[in-house]
Amino acid sequence: MILYLDMDEVLADTYGAHIEIYNEEFGESLTKEDCMGREVWQCVPQARQQSVKDHARQDGFFRPLKPIEDSIRVVRELQKKHEIYIASAAMQFPNSLREKSDWLDEYFPFIPWQNRILLGHKHILDGDVLIDDRSYNLKNFKGRGMLFTSPHNVHENHYERVNTWPEIAGLLL
Amino acid sequence: MILYLDMDEVLADTYGAHIEIYNEEFGESLTKEDCMGREVWQCVPQARQQSVKDHARQDGFFRPLKPIEDSIRVVRELQKKHEIYIASAAMQFPNSLREKSDWLDEYFPFIPWQNRILLGHKHILDGDVLIDDRSYNLKNFKGRGMLFTSPHNVHENHYERVNTWPEIAGLLL
Repeated sequence: MILYLDMDEVLADTYGAHIEIYNEEFGESLTKEDCMGREVWQCVPQARQQSVKDHARQDGFFRPLKPIEDSIRVVRELQKKHEIYIASAAMQFPNSLREKSDWLDEYFPFIPWQNRILLGHKHILDGDVLIDDRSYNLKNFKGRGMLFTSPHNVHENHYERVNTWPEIAGLLL
Repeated sequence: MILYLDMDEVLADTYGAHIEIYNEEFGESLTKEDCMGREVWQCVPQARQQSVKDHARQDGFFRPLKPIEDSIRVVRELQKKHEIYIASAAMQFPNSLREKSDWLDEYFPFIPWQNRILLGHKHILDGDVLIDDRSYNLKNFKGRGMLFTSPHNVHENHYERVNTWPEIAGLLL
């Protein structure tokens, strides 16, 4: 099978980084638990929302992201059985392009450049499975769409949900 | 229809830039006509081949590329009738990612980020037409593959060939 894996919130903990940067900047102690069902910017006072929205446009935001738990190990296993592509809607953030390539070189060096995709619309991808945290990316995908749980999507219930990488291993290995 | 357009040698004159940089560096006067059927690096003395091969890995190589004649005008016309995506196998050159995004902002600002794709393998694209100068990109594409003429591919005869953008306009408008 051909599998497409999103980066932010599926392989890389972007949500956690937004919270961490916010807490450092404003001396707060916001947690993921405080934010269930919302974007990070929606969980902060209005006067600080633009600051959170601007994180992703800043140089150095994407490169230090932490990998999502178990993702590296499970993707390596999946690769033995399936054709794996990483597909990130990165074109929205030109500053992120090189950082995402470098990040993959560090954490997923076993995914070669031929199998890395930085794009916008994901419905142009031809394949069997797309694992993504954004329902709008799954919406027009012709294969099996799996919604990877992230704090912002916990109330979404139109897609097959996967909560963790070991759960994905159970389904696709 | 959904159309995918390659960048290098289809929208941007990468071949011409290789020749220009080579000529400047070595005080030569190589022309495209000298190179028919070959890559630029294959047209220079062996001791200089690596230097030409290294061009694309250098910062600042992609950003100043000149648009291919008539490409901007015809792509703008095509966009009125078709869904247009730009698909460049840029992941091989991490230094090119931001430069390609900035280049598109300058010359093809009417192609939004949602319709820009930087990738490796192109056979993962789901659509009707792929216009590319590399036969290996057309090989496994499921739609109509069109080989855009570049000096290096003039002897290739396994694909439908298009020589110029006005010719593409005649076929797809």
